[in-house]
Amino acid sequence: MKVRLGLDIGGTTVHGIAVAAEEPHHVVTEETHPTRKGGDGVVGGSLDMVAALRSALPPDAEIVSIGLGVPGIVNAGAVTHAVNLGLDGDPLDLAALVSAGADGVPTSVENDVKAATLGGLQWLREQGSDIDDLALLNVGTGIAAGLLLDGRLRHGSRGMAGEIGHLVHDPTGPLCPCGRRGCLELYASGSGVRRQWAGTAAELFEAAEAGDADATRIRDELTSGIAQAITLLAYSVDVSCVLVTGGVVSATPALREAILARLRADENTSLGRLAGIAERVRWLPAGHPAGALGAALLGAGDEEVRSWRS
Amino acid sequence: MKVRLGLDIGGTTVHGIAVAAEEPHHVVTEETHPTRKGGDGVVGGSLDMVAALRSALPPDAEIVSIGLGVPGIVNAGAVTHAVNLGLDGDPLDLAALVSAGADGVPTSVENDVKAATLGGLQWLREQGSDIDDLALLNVGTGIAAGLLLDGRLRHGSRGMAGEIGHLVHDPTGPLCPCGRRGCLELYASGSGVRRQWAGTAAELFEAAEAGDADATRIRDELTSGIAQAITLLAYSVDVSCVLVTGGVVSATPALREAILARLRADENTSLGRLAGIAERVRWLPAGHPAGALGAALLGAGDEEVRSWRS
Repeated sequence: MKVRLGLDIGGTTVHGIAVAAEEPHHVVTEETHPTRKGGDGVVGGSLDMVAALRSALPPDAEIVSIGLGVPGIVNAGAVTHAVNLGLDGDPLDLAALVSAGADGVPTSVENDVKAATLGGLQWLREQGSDIDDLALLNVGTGIAAGLLLDGRLRHGSRGMAGEIGHLVHDPTGPLCPCGRRGCLELYASGSGVRRQWAGTAAELFEAAEAGDADATRIRDELTSGIAQAITLLAYSVDVSCVLVTGGVVSATPALREAILARLRADENTSLGRLAGIAERVRWLPAGHPAGALGAALLGAGDEEVRSWRS
Repeated sequence: MKVRLGLDIGGTTVHGIAVAAEEPHHVVTEETHPTRKGGDGVVGGSLDMVAALRSALPPDAEIVSIGLGVPGIVNAGAVTHAVNLGLDGDPLDLAALVSAGADGVPTSVENDVKAATLGGLQWLREQGSDIDDLALLNVGTGIAAGLLLDGRLRHGSRGMAGEIGHLVHDPTGPLCPCGRRGCLELYASGSGVRRQWAGTAAELFEAAEAGDADATRIRDELTSGIAQAITLLAYSVDVSCVLVTGGVVSATPALREAILARLRADENTSLGRLAGIAERVRWLPAGHPAGALGAALLGAGDEEVRSWRS
């Protein structure tokens, strides 16, 4: 049996998966390791994960590809600006280093949210959808999107397609660690909430319901920031589907309802009616391994990805 | 000789062009007519333009395609929301009606800015560029972009890709005719300037230089709004090139310099350095017939468009 390995390398854990190359929804084995940081740590940790997955595979399994999703900017297999992995200096040629350490198996590296978009596509397939035009909007520590346009993963000229988190949302807003003021991420992300609120998102929504003024403001900024991100994706690339993922959204049903209400309010305008943004939104269920699965699918070409139907 | 006809149908004039199908930079003939409005007017005016172009062609010319660029939302050859053409009710099946009136010549209809993006590509070819990944940003009465991603014109799921003019730029801003508050178009467009300033853009810049407070504010909002549109295109689709066009930009060198200065200021951040947005910007010269030329090129397939090299 031919298998593809996928590694979703997060700031805290590495999630590894092996899927059948011919049936990408068939997960053969999975592992989770703590993340090791720095260039040597990321390469060594990736190779350890490859070895752990390999040892759990049936004896007849042949690894045909390895894919890695990393929280950073990726260009031509090299990683830059991956602050959470301790990589922010010279580009790290991760694809070549992992392939060299893994018997030359063809290895792809992509930004983690872009990779997860292929995992999101697989989830849509499992739901019986034939859509192959979507944005995966990840509301995690930051906020960023991956774009699959007409079945092709959009990398962008500098690997930055979908990096909407540092678009300025409010020029009079607070200073962002990136150096700008009022970035979208300061309002519409897990870190944006934590910056202003000590409890969970559910507690934030409860406090706002109970009339707490700060909680109400933070909740409304979170809601409108995520709605703005979805709107921006609709009016810039006009994808058929915006699939939203991330802990704060998965854990807070009231947030999902508030986002949809905000989007529906825009349908009072004639352009808003034509755009029909609310009906494009889907929510990826918590626990779906879109990151690792999508990383595994990096090894499949665009044509192969588009050939998958449920 | 095989020719393609292109019609750029504006709110005031229709610009028609005939180009050689094998050499799309070779303009065979051109015409300009006043625009006729309403459904019958747009169809009749288009057919009159086709007849006028045909009568000016050499006797051996064969019209192999007709393309129309219209200032509205287009889906499957039908036009909606083209307020400047007096079309804002039921979709007008313009492609079918023009083809039927023109001896069945295959006819395509697309939003005018999207069509002009193919004309912008031709201009890049004339400059010796092999880029086939670009946004054409049109700063006219409104502001909107066309996207050519990896050589493919991005239409979008509802024909709205690049319709960034009604993204909210300032939620506390004035009411927009579209029904929202603070749309980008209220600041970063010809109508946005005219709403607040009686003179030309050049006079606006002169008054601002001379210290007029209102002129300074309007100028700075125009500059930062256009810079924001360019930035948004870089961080959403990450195109190799943003080709800016439109009268206010073409006529005002100081505006171009101010936009570039604004974009360069963002390169003080590490993400901004990676993005290098200022160096992606090109300015389409005034008078380039990108709209009509691009409409003519709608008849060529994506593969053919990508095969053109200078």
